Amino acid sequence: MTYCVGLFLDEGLVMLADTRTNAGLDNISTFTKLQQFHRPGERMIATMTAGNLAVSQAVINLIQDGLPHPETGKPETIYTVATMFAAAGLVSAAVRKVYETHGEAMKAQGVAFDVSILLGGQIANRTMRLFEIYAAGNFIEATRDTPFLQIGEHKYGKPILDRAVTSATTLTDGVKLALISMDSTLRSNLSVGMPLDLLVYRNNSIDRVETHRLEDGDAYFRMIRERWSAALSAAHKAIPAPDWLHADAD
Amino acid sequence: MTYCVGLFLDEGLVMLADTRTNAGLDNISTFTKLQQFHRPGERMIATMTAGNLAVSQAVINLIQDGLPHPETGKPETIYTVATMFAAAGLVSAAVRKVYETHGEAMKAQGVAFDVSILLGGQIANRTMRLFEIYAAGNFIEATRDTPFLQIGEHKYGKPILDRAVTSATTLTDGVKLALISMDSTLRSNLSVGMPLDLLVYRNNSIDRVETHRLEDGDAYFRMIRERWSAALSAAHKAIPAPDWLHADAD
Repeated sequence: MTYCVGLFLDEGLVMLADTRTNAGLDNISTFTKLQQFHRPGERMIATMTAGNLAVSQAVINLIQDGLPHPETGKPETIYTVATMFAAAGLVSAAVRKVYETHGEAMKAQGVAFDVSILLGGQIANRTMRLFEIYAAGNFIEATRDTPFLQIGEHKYGKPILDRAVTSATTLTDGVKLALISMDSTLRSNLSVGMPLDLLVYRNNSIDRVETHRLEDGDAYFRMIRERWSAALSAAHKAIPAPDWLHADAD
Repeated sequence: MTYCVGLFLDEGLVMLADTRTNAGLDNISTFTKLQQFHRPGERMIATMTAGNLAVSQAVINLIQDGLPHPETGKPETIYTVATMFAAAGLVSAAVRKVYETHGEAMKAQGVAFDVSILLGGQIANRTMRLFEIYAAGNFIEATRDTPFLQIGEHKYGKPILDRAVTSATTLTDGVKLALISMDSTLRSNLSVGMPLDLLVYRNNSIDRVETHRLEDGDAYFRMIRERWSAALSAAHKAIPAPDWLHADAD
């Protein structure tokens, strides 16, 4: 399993992925699921992947090696596509290509063709965008109404995003909220695990991109987890009891 | 879908259920999923059910009508079982009886035999207990280590319970936390819906049981939802930014 979350904020993008892959509970490994395709001054594109590792690695290879443009037949890569929409189309074509190559054999072995990809970024002088591409190759885009997308084990980490993330959330608060959302997931699903890969990108600043790896035991992550639990405890205690409840009466 | 949560606290039990049932998104109804079997001074037992409504209603009927005791053959009901463990055994026997009666025909129609039941309560002079009974009739019990059990759509509402509920949580705080957990679920899953049924039982006080129905638009529930969102917002803003993050630098 995997948990990846992408925040699509006015200030920029926050992308956070765990690194655990597993083939059964007794076979776990660490693989980065966050890939960056950066051409200084020209484009900053990043992907995060969930699902079958062989499929997602094949997709990431294909978008770098290139696929023929559906009309011109000219090979296109993630470094040459002219728009983010074309980048989403390229990822989509790569997913379908992998399905063509491996889909039937995987089915014969009872392995689901399971992949989903978050694709975010910006090409100079164009708008920043964030897409989610499904296993069928179709895709959706984050908007200001719902400024986040999640793939993998998404349910545990969704309530905090639902309540606190708006497109006006700052990058700094976005980083904290993504980490809190990840922590909620880590606590409940063993197949999501440290270390974490984080990418923070500032809108309209192709070269203002930072990546950080948070290792197991990371001091900041531990602090955020402790302070968050303490804050939730204080918060529910501060809410008055319902006046119809007699549980506390003697 | 359904969401039910039971808290097993030193002070007593908190049981909370939504009331939405659906056969497809275009066919939703309201059914109570919380049943109370109370004999003043003698026993207070309550169930909450998730899964196929026909199955869970049949189970609830059977435990009231009675089933033959596996050894003596004498009919036993939820009002006559001598212990909470025997009550869990009765629910288990009822689940298996319904499977015998309807399991095959349901399978022929492609309908899953899907049911899970939370059973909590106390019989005078015995200990209070909380069980979860599965579709196979097997069951587990809540302990002080993990003092809550959930059935149905459980993931959205779990993080808050993981972080804030311990067996030392008071009944009043338990009510608030169960409502917050429910609110997280309601926001994300349309097939979980108002009104809500709540039961609060004080340990070793067979007759100290309260039930409340929270209707759509309930003022307390609205207050808790608003205060909770505000508290989470304040809490994440109060956490310092990581010192390695340059996103805010100019």
